[in-house]
Amino acid sequence: MRTQEDLRSGRIRPPAEEHATVVVGGGLAGRVTAWRAAQRGLRVTLVEPDPVTAPSASRSASAVAAGMLTPATEAVFGEEPLMELGIRSAGMYADFVAELEEASGIRVGYRTTGTLLVAFDRDDLAVLTELHGLQGRLGVRAERLTGRECRRLEPMLAPSVRGGVLAPEDHSVDPRLLLRALAAAGTRAGVAEVRERVVEITAGGPGGARLGAVLSDGRVLPAGQVVLAAGCRSDRVKVPRPVVPPLRPVKGQLLRTRVPAGEPPLVHRTVRGLVRGSPVYLVPRADGEVVVGATQEERGHDTSLTVGGLWQVLRDARELVPGVDELEVTETCVGLRPGSPDNAPLLGPTGVGGLHLAGGHFRHGVLLAPVTGEAMAQVLTGEALPEYARRFAADRPEVSGHTTNWEHQWN
Amino acid sequence: MRTQEDLRSGRIRPPAEEHATVVVGGGLAGRVTAWRAAQRGLRVTLVEPDPVTAPSASRSASAVAAGMLTPATEAVFGEEPLMELGIRSAGMYADFVAELEEASGIRVGYRTTGTLLVAFDRDDLAVLTELHGLQGRLGVRAERLTGRECRRLEPMLAPSVRGGVLAPEDHSVDPRLLLRALAAAGTRAGVAEVRERVVEITAGGPGGARLGAVLSDGRVLPAGQVVLAAGCRSDRVKVPRPVVPPLRPVKGQLLRTRVPAGEPPLVHRTVRGLVRGSPVYLVPRADGEVVVGATQEERGHDTSLTVGGLWQVLRDARELVPGVDELEVTETCVGLRPGSPDNAPLLGPTGVGGLHLAGGHFRHGVLLAPVTGEAMAQVLTGEALPEYARRFAADRPEVSGHTTNWEHQWN
Repeated sequence: MRTQEDLRSGRIRPPAEEHATVVVGGGLAGRVTAWRAAQRGLRVTLVEPDPVTAPSASRSASAVAAGMLTPATEAVFGEEPLMELGIRSAGMYADFVAELEEASGIRVGYRTTGTLLVAFDRDDLAVLTELHGLQGRLGVRAERLTGRECRRLEPMLAPSVRGGVLAPEDHSVDPRLLLRALAAAGTRAGVAEVRERVVEITAGGPGGARLGAVLSDGRVLPAGQVVLAAGCRSDRVKVPRPVVPPLRPVKGQLLRTRVPAGEPPLVHRTVRGLVRGSPVYLVPRADGEVVVGATQEERGHDTSLTVGGLWQVLRDARELVPGVDELEVTETCVGLRPGSPDNAPLLGPTGVGGLHLAGGHFRHGVLLAPVTGEAMAQVLTGEALPEYARRFAADRPEVSGHTTNWEHQWN
Repeated sequence: MRTQEDLRSGRIRPPAEEHATVVVGGGLAGRVTAWRAAQRGLRVTLVEPDPVTAPSASRSASAVAAGMLTPATEAVFGEEPLMELGIRSAGMYADFVAELEEASGIRVGYRTTGTLLVAFDRDDLAVLTELHGLQGRLGVRAERLTGRECRRLEPMLAPSVRGGVLAPEDHSVDPRLLLRALAAAGTRAGVAEVRERVVEITAGGPGGARLGAVLSDGRVLPAGQVVLAAGCRSDRVKVPRPVVPPLRPVKGQLLRTRVPAGEPPLVHRTVRGLVRGSPVYLVPRADGEVVVGATQEERGHDTSLTVGGLWQVLRDARELVPGVDELEVTETCVGLRPGSPDNAPLLGPTGVGGLHLAGGHFRHGVLLAPVTGEAMAQVLTGEALPEYARRFAADRPEVSGHTTNWEHQWN
């Protein structure tokens, strides 16, 4: 395995331009891939139209996400392999953050205060009880609490909260800081950045390159390999053959809020809730920010903020923690989560030589950043996907049958 | 009476700088006063820190207001004289708009489709019935309707609406366009504008002027007369003697929304409602915008958007017109309405020679723009307040006893 140290020491030379790795997309998947690949000595160019410092203008899932690292409280029946991947990635987070903060000089707001998941009514409590059983089978720490115990931990919870589950290892991070840190670390590791949009990947590129990345201004970047990591726009990039499964945009509307100056924190840890079957969360940060979200809507690429979306989030958050009324709203956000045909990530090579995917992270992009970076760097340097990531290979049969929507790329 | 025609014809000369009229504040009261005064041949300088083209950044009541011209459906017991002033101003609106659009070249979105005021529950209906009686005594047109008749007019109303009152002459205008038109008309009539904040009015000014307007950058403008029209900041401008009644900020939170492209209008006229005693409105514009508001909160000069404020507006609007869920939220707004001690406007001279007020319009600033401009131009050209405005004289006994909070200006 080549390392950045090999590169710096002159033991190996950087690859020529026509063998460069072009990463399409500057969200978390793209940036963690670019950084990790550059650390291993690859020549990496990241192409992204939006500046990383202006996330509020962005509709990218990474810039909008709340930053929950919550494999235990996200556990879903039938998705146990994905949960195991999440648990692995959560376990890597402390070291990942330490390395990234060191490499970038930017703190990423990693908070290790755990998550309390609570139930509003009897039916919600029944769901939580089932979930707690699943958590036990997955081997994650999760403690069943009564309503009173929940309120002892979080006194601002509504009296009507029926009970909950404390997941002491479900932490959080600030995804916007994570993006900035990954950008800075990438730059320090040698990642070049082009502020443009990629519209097409061609077989063959300039200077005899294996692939070309066509920009919207007409320029073509030569590439030895390309990583498509453009979220739910990934399937809109034209490619030589239909190897990219459709990526379903799942719209999320949420609010960034703030505890009024001088007031104590509203909640002390991430509080998630089921309110009459509807999920809601409050993610507090050390600086007083509280992210309150989120809807899950399948409305194509529509990114409008709607009265109904805001309403749903506010309604459920107020049921759980009536004191949210006092929060100042600093920003309303809409983002599109990229959902693959089986809702699991798409990692590594496709049927087009040199073309890789790092996408389809759906609700789990922040959590899965460490494993994504590790797995992608491995395949980009010629190794196989790590064992733990093989179920999520981009060319797995479960998703490759779905590339029939290829024609819509040309619309 | 001097007119702009006299001025242009050379029959009279513009007054010298030390006799200039300085208008403090670029909201509707200030701009309509400046325009009308310049039309009468006065040399007018308007001082306002915020550009009129950037209303969304402004917290001014004028830039945030929905623009309802609704004296009938605003009628309040005990405020009959104010309602009569409003009815007079509403009656002037068509001519006022025609003249302003002609003078400025800017259309102001005047819509003459009337207002439907509806009641949600039995108690709300009782309030409407009382109001309808008051409307009759005030002589305004208002027709009592059943719930079914309301829904025939506005099919998107909730089935639970109990009944309503149709006020066919309660119209609307777009206050942001009105501001821009007044600014343009003012400029064409010779109003000079200074992009600054006035911090003090002094007795005596440069060049032997009667008054001075001290700007925050230290400059002093000479003035023969000064009009304080700075909304609920007016009582924060230092003056030679305590002649400015306290102006209470009454915070309003509201949303600007839009019917999705290609969809028909949600409502065809202004729809106001009482929902369990809480007032709410939807003001549609020809371009698809729908303004939905508003809270009334007394929290000092706080202009934070809050979860609780948004919640209240959305809750009540959804009760009346469930289809609001589909509206796109284009902007969330917070403004401060200026409330005088008796909630009525403050017009004309104060106890300091040359110092006038045009303020305290509270919820009625848009409606009262025509009478404000007329009354202020009259006093600024040396006449008395018009008969209809005398009850609202800035130095009336009902408010002058309240200037004891003078000391707080210095904090």
